[in-house]
Amino acid sequence: VTGLPVAFLTDYGYDDEFAGSCRLVMERLAPGLTVLELTHGIPPGNVRRGALALEAACRRAGPAVYLAVVDPGVGTDRRAVALAAGGSFLVGPDNGLLAPAADALGGTERLVDISRTSLALEPVTATFHGRDLFAPVAAHLAVGRPLEVAGEEGDPASLVRLELPVSRRDGDSLVAPVLHADRFGNLILGAAPGDVPGGLAHGSALSIAAPAGTFAAVAGATFADSAAGDAVVVYEASSGRLAVAVNLGSAAELLGAGPDDELTLAPAT
Amino acid sequence: VTGLPVAFLTDYGYDDEFAGSCRLVMERLAPGLTVLELTHGIPPGNVRRGALALEAACRRAGPAVYLAVVDPGVGTDRRAVALAAGGSFLVGPDNGLLAPAADALGGTERLVDISRTSLALEPVTATFHGRDLFAPVAAHLAVGRPLEVAGEEGDPASLVRLELPVSRRDGDSLVAPVLHADRFGNLILGAAPGDVPGGLAHGSALSIAAPAGTFAAVAGATFADSAAGDAVVVYEASSGRLAVAVNLGSAAELLGAGPDDELTLAPAT
Amino acid sequence: VTGLPVAFLTDYGYDDEFAGSCRLVMERLAPGLTVLELTHGIPPGNVRRGALALEAACRRAGPAVYLAVVDPGVGTDRRAVALAAGGSFLVGPDNGLLAPAADALGGTERLVDISRTSLALEPVTATFHGRDLFAPVAAHLAVGRPLEVAGEEGDPASLVRLELPVSRRDGDSLVAPVLHADRFGNLILGAAPGDVPGGLAHGSALSIAAPAGTFAAVAGATFADSAAGDAVVVYEASSGRLAVAVNLGSAAELLGAGPDDELTLAPAT
Repeated sequence: VTGLPVAFLTDYGYDDEFAGSCRLVMERLAPGLTVLELTHGIPPGNVRRGALALEAACRRAGPAVYLAVVDPGVGTDRRAVALAAGGSFLVGPDNGLLAPAADALGGTERLVDISRTSLALEPVTATFHGRDLFAPVAAHLAVGRPLEVAGEEGDPASLVRLELPVSRRDGDSLVAPVLHADRFGNLILGAAPGDVPGGLAHGSALSIAAPAGTFAAVAGATFADSAAGDAVVVYEASSGRLAVAVNLGSAAELLGAGPDDELTLAPAT
Repeated sequence: VTGLPVAFLTDYGYDDEFAGSCRLVMERLAPGLTVLELTHGIPPGNVRRGALALEAACRRAGPAVYLAVVDPGVGTDRRAVALAAGGSFLVGPDNGLLAPAADALGGTERLVDISRTSLALEPVTATFHGRDLFAPVAAHLAVGRPLEVAGEEGDPASLVRLELPVSRRDGDSLVAPVLHADRFGNLILGAAPGDVPGGLAHGSALSIAAPAGTFAAVAGATFADSAAGDAVVVYEASSGRLAVAVNLGSAAELLGAGPDDELTLAPAT
Repeated sequence: VTGLPVAFLTDYGYDDEFAGSCRLVMERLAPGLTVLELTHGIPPGNVRRGALALEAACRRAGPAVYLAVVDPGVGTDRRAVALAAGGSFLVGPDNGLLAPAADALGGTERLVDISRTSLALEPVTATFHGRDLFAPVAAHLAVGRPLEVAGEEGDPASLVRLELPVSRRDGDSLVAPVLHADRFGNLILGAAPGDVPGGLAHGSALSIAAPAGTFAAVAGATFADSAAGDAVVVYEASSGRLAVAVNLGSAAELLGAGPDDELTLAPAT
């Protein structure tokens, strides 16, 4: 096989055979295809978390087919789509999951409605579009079949956008929503480094009001830039978003914060 | 490498290097071999769960070598086998793990006892046949070595069968055992859609008696066919078995049911 | 691509896209590269557990590039290194993670400091050296670029060693630290089979003093060598270390022991 690798992300978890079933179907349709597992650990039905992980993964990647399935509306009339963006393709349900990654790749250039694609494995089960519909489309695109074969051309602007909570200024403070906490307890915020009042100059002192109290923090580049083990670091995450960490500890735990909580960042007084 | 892909399933989990060790051995014996991870999240020693996952994964797959290791009897005199079935091969312990998948692939055509295979890595450790015995045999079969090289020909009918609980009719009702609950809380039953009294006509009303009470349900094709968020759907799972789901929720939780519990399905009165 | 496979181990977990991001970068730099996932389930920052898993995985493997990232000091002045050992390469932080595997592969023949490697993806983020620095170096080595291209040659003896707790004799007894408990509850000890007083002759009776009490045990080759379900077996693990198991049960649970606890093994009286 020559062609693009498939980068595969789902909420299927690791205890069932669901992701493996999709993988077997892709291998059947395109023997020798390279498939990269991004993660199958997205919490069930958590479209936002899936979208953020996909967006982060495509940074620094080469051309690929992104196969993403977080699909609580499987089998309903939600649209299934395949997109072209910046030399890559994205395949999945049209529920907001693909939009941030498509933007990060340079924007959606083409959109094809694959809800009734002729590339599906028939009969398409109503509950497993990952195996029967999305994986086959991804495999075909990966080996170079043109996008128009996968379905009916649609308006790129019709792609469902993801609603993400956003930060706001409140006087000298930045009120920023927590988008998610990663495995290390780092809190990824719905804000950019440039949004911090006074900027994110290395070593500058900040205070963070969080559900568990108010904490002294320091702007830094990495976790060990905290003064001590329990000090909080505000930094630019590898995804480009503003983030909060505790060196060798968990910011999520210390600050008592998780998705949809808000943190208020202000220059230390 | 040309040949078959290896589809790999174990109860080794994801925290240890066990599956990776097997993977390294296969790569050593057959560089460039395609290996698909089905799942390594089978609960430790749960042969039934492994067998059901393997059976489900081989639906819609092309020819492959299925390497399956859920092997609480490792190092005892339980037999190790390799099977040919429907253009595919299955390799693993002869404890029931392989039987449902072999049947789903069309039935066991040949069986080879590989307990003392010459293809093993010597010395074979008593506790890690996955790495030392099963993975090597799978790698050799994947690159096209004939089955008879792997061991001694045996009677296909001697394959250990898996004992699965079965459903029964009770007047107008179907009493069906829960085989397992998947990540989404969907309950997979030891019954076929055709076993439902009155059939599984789309939209027909059912009642389900479960450990946590009696629930109104509807026959449907997908999760969103429930009338509301908390309504229960009875549907045909992608594995072909009868299943029970709650849209955007967990049937396992709502019905208080898990493996070996029984559900009683009846037409709504 | 011809070359070596990359065997990939981290503490990134399976819920985030971190390992997938590294994988995408390797695919971009070396399309078609074979990458084997050893495990990404090392507990966050647990260098010792990572080192032991890596050491175990390289047993019976062929030549490979081991990419290992358990890196609580990411972004600090800890060194990043690439090693040559026994026909394989190891890439990761110089914090002890690589040393046991390098020894198991035959010893570190060459060491290159890659902290400021020209092979990194610029700009290197301070918090994600896995993606930006280690994965690129591993990919380049895998496709055959020479080690000296990756950085500045250093003294192999300067590799940071891992401090592991060791066993000691106490009269007739062996006091052995628990290094870790695996998924099956087997306790892997900081001792070799030859350290057991009186040896590990098959069937010989032992007693084990553990946090949860004193237990009768038997020396055996595999789990089922215990006399009954609750009997304890002392055996040589597939990694070559001394280990303690309970057949069809968890030694960790029964003995109440985990990492850094000590077990005292003695001939049964």
